[in-house]
Amino acid sequence: MNLDPYRSFITDLAAQSGDFIRPKFGRLDLAVETKSDASPVTLADRGAEELMRGLIARKFPSHGIIGEEFGNDRPGAEFVWVLDPIDGTKAFITGVPLWGTLIALLYQGQPVLGVINQPVLGQFLLGDNTTTTLNGRPVRCRATTRIEDSTILTSDPLNPAKYQNGSAYEALTRRAKLVRTWGDCYGYLLVASGWADICLDPIMNPWDIAALVPVIRGSGGTITDWRGGSAYPAGSTIASATPVLHTEVLRALAG
Amino acid sequence: MNLDPYRSFITDLAAQSGDFIRPKFGRLDLAVETKSDASPVTLADRGAEELMRGLIARKFPSHGIIGEEFGNDRPGAEFVWVLDPIDGTKAFITGVPLWGTLIALLYQGQPVLGVINQPVLGQFLLGDNTTTTLNGRPVRCRATTRIEDSTILTSDPLNPAKYQNGSAYEALTRRAKLVRTWGDCYGYLLVASGWADICLDPIMNPWDIAALVPVIRGSGGTITDWRGGSAYPAGSTIASATPVLHTEVLRALAG
Repeated sequence: MNLDPYRSFITDLAAQSGDFIRPKFGRLDLAVETKSDASPVTLADRGAEELMRGLIARKFPSHGIIGEEFGNDRPGAEFVWVLDPIDGTKAFITGVPLWGTLIALLYQGQPVLGVINQPVLGQFLLGDNTTTTLNGRPVRCRATTRIEDSTILTSDPLNPAKYQNGSAYEALTRRAKLVRTWGDCYGYLLVASGWADICLDPIMNPWDIAALVPVIRGSGGTITDWRGGSAYPAGSTIASATPVLHTEVLRALAG
Repeated sequence: MNLDPYRSFITDLAAQSGDFIRPKFGRLDLAVETKSDASPVTLADRGAEELMRGLIARKFPSHGIIGEEFGNDRPGAEFVWVLDPIDGTKAFITGVPLWGTLIALLYQGQPVLGVINQPVLGQFLLGDNTTTTLNGRPVRCRATTRIEDSTILTSDPLNPAKYQNGSAYEALTRRAKLVRTWGDCYGYLLVASGWADICLDPIMNPWDIAALVPVIRGSGGTITDWRGGSAYPAGSTIASATPVLHTEVLRALAG
């Protein structure tokens, strides 16, 4: 299958949604409205999804769309776009640029293209399960094989213990070289581009995961759910820089 | 005391050190050398401190200097500059822009001017214990008074439990609205500029703290060590958006 037309289109989706979201970030004068329904993150999220849905409907009217904000539209179509305009809303409302726009293209239910776009830092990651590029240049995961040499990232420091085998997770983090909540999609961007070794989240939605799969696989990484099963669809995610490291993480989390 | 000459000089120190450090960040081609002694963060750290020491020696030859990389030079002088070129080296080597340059001016042993500069994100915070500005515009802490409404930031998720009353810290984080390791000096920048409510670190060095004090106080926040004692010099730091919230945090950590 020739993905080139979709590759250039997904690049355009990222550029246009990024231009829309960028000026809404880091604005404390807007952020004070976060208690109303029209918070800047809501405006950015909804506006960017509407914008992308419009572009997709015009260009590929037969394709389906799954979006965080506006739900499903032909989710069983042969080609389906999966959209999460702002993954990492808590970072966004804290003025921290560790969030991103996730865009995936599913073919027969599986992600074949994925984008993690960080428009403020100017980082556009595009993966196709074989190759991943950052602003057009190929990136690779690190060669790390030991947890003791690993930087482990997760989104919420309190979640793993709440939703999984808490003591096994604690033991895993105590073995790691560095543990931080530089998470949401930005943590997976860091694994795919060789800055970190493991990113894991115990609770994920389909629109959180779809784009990560072609990005992590394209950079040589391994991605599954927390039990080592199918990466997409799934309810949890672990991405590791190497298959050997991934096996170690699964073993550690099994306790 | 008229601080204006020092204010314009400290602004220049931040601009020049920022120009030196900025191109060394986010360079994966350089980062692979981190195992040698000449890692990019070491080069950036040492080079920026040498640069600032040279500027200070030329402009104020009688002043003292305390620096993380090159030690103390007349630390008992009436005016002493305290320098930490890259506070948050672990963020720096992970390609995450949550680090900063700390510059403080002590007068008779207490910080009277403080800078937190993030040259990649273009954020220059300058405080004098009375007023704090972000890129020239005054900023204020939030009005938060309850832990339950608070975003709590810390540098290392494993440190508080290791060095302090671990169960009290865990209980504190479970009461918070949001807990993240968007820490090092960037966490204090977020508290001072109204994006977060509490930043705390159980282990600090003098060069980690000195610049934070005039910045937090100038934006209306409260800063002490973990027992509620003097903020500088100290071996730990808690900064809170309001005095009421600070009292709540101290009470919670006392267990």
